[in-house]
Amino acid sequence: MKIKVLESILAGNARAAEEVRELLAAERVTALNLISGPGAGKTSLLEQVVPRLQPGLRVGVLEGDIATTRDGERVGKLGVPVVQLLTNGGCHLEAALVARGLAELDLDSLDLVFIENVGNIACPAEFDLGEMAKVGLLSVAEGHDKPAKYPLLFSELSALVLGKMDLLPYTDFDMGAFESDLRALNAAAPVFPLSCRTGDGVGAFVGWIEEMCRPQLAPASAGGTS
Amino acid sequence: MKIKVLESILAGNARAAEEVRELLAAERVTALNLISGPGAGKTSLLEQVVPRLQPGLRVGVLEGDIATTRDGERVGKLGVPVVQLLTNGGCHLEAALVARGLAELDLDSLDLVFIENVGNIACPAEFDLGEMAKVGLLSVAEGHDKPAKYPLLFSELSALVLGKMDLLPYTDFDMGAFESDLRALNAAAPVFPLSCRTGDGVGAFVGWIEEMCRPQLAPASAGGTS
Repeated sequence: MKIKVLESILAGNARAAEEVRELLAAERVTALNLISGPGAGKTSLLEQVVPRLQPGLRVGVLEGDIATTRDGERVGKLGVPVVQLLTNGGCHLEAALVARGLAELDLDSLDLVFIENVGNIACPAEFDLGEMAKVGLLSVAEGHDKPAKYPLLFSELSALVLGKMDLLPYTDFDMGAFESDLRALNAAAPVFPLSCRTGDGVGAFVGWIEEMCRPQLAPASAGGTS
Repeated sequence: MKIKVLESILAGNARAAEEVRELLAAERVTALNLISGPGAGKTSLLEQVVPRLQPGLRVGVLEGDIATTRDGERVGKLGVPVVQLLTNGGCHLEAALVARGLAELDLDSLDLVFIENVGNIACPAEFDLGEMAKVGLLSVAEGHDKPAKYPLLFSELSALVLGKMDLLPYTDFDMGAFESDLRALNAAAPVFPLSCRTGDGVGAFVGWIEEMCRPQLAPASAGGTS
């Protein structure tokens, strides 16, 4: 007799994420899960970052959206392989869809995969995608109170990009209040203030990404892995 | 023998929303469901709108957030009754929580209730709260491509506030592309460009709200409803 098993979404996702993590480790690919609200500038950030990465670092992109392939087309112009993941209404990416996206990339020829999540800071951080790290992006136009109001993302991220710094003079963004709220949730994650319009600050974030990819950039040891 | 019924979240919500709608009709209260991404300026909009409403219009606010009572405290300073609805991680409001919030307000003494949703344009529009209308808020800092990328909200809203217009000169927001994408989804909804920093444009939106409340503002007819 068959027993019907109803698994919670999160439990099923955790299992799929573990498979993604194992695949990425076997293929020596670093994956970064990029999370922000809508219009904070995730795609613009990729447009700035990808051309600045050192030439030896081979990049692919999984582009998550609810609808349209517009962002995938923008990223495709960077000359890197990209797969558009459409959730068709779903408000976050799940690991099973990421696994299908990775299957469309030639992982042998890649060192780094950016996973651009759906524009939402409410629930995507609940869903492990098997990534090495979550990277948060907050635009200063969104206000300094976001860490306290959306605590899960800000506590889980390994790095935070503070974007649209060119707009800072025209906003009421309070840097002290922001850092105080952020550090109450996350003591360690570095913050990278930058502007995708001017390019200011992008280099420091690129340096952090390259550091995350160090194992992939190192020449394979003579004896291989034991 | 009892039959276990597993109802989908959306079906359960639709039933609760119908009860909210009936309650609001019986109490002659207009409810507006305010939806935007995080940091687009929903609370700032209420801070601008509430003091401008005509004195005869009695306002209450249900303030939805994932965490903290910060926005509820801001709205409370306007001198109107406010109930903070905390989803504790949930990425949208549901009608059952709205019903509990309304039970905390003295509806007999109110004409208009703003329901400020969680900062998210991905899924809140899926959840009917029993409101009379959904009002969307998009900040120009978020970019003109949002209607096409988050179509459900933009197709369902009855009015769209285009906020942070003071930032327009410093962004790449393309008004023509925005209107074209919006009108492909929604032919009728009026658009209210405004700035909560300068107050420009707020009056027109206030006029629309008052129009939505006309039945509540009209003196009760001598014979009552037939």
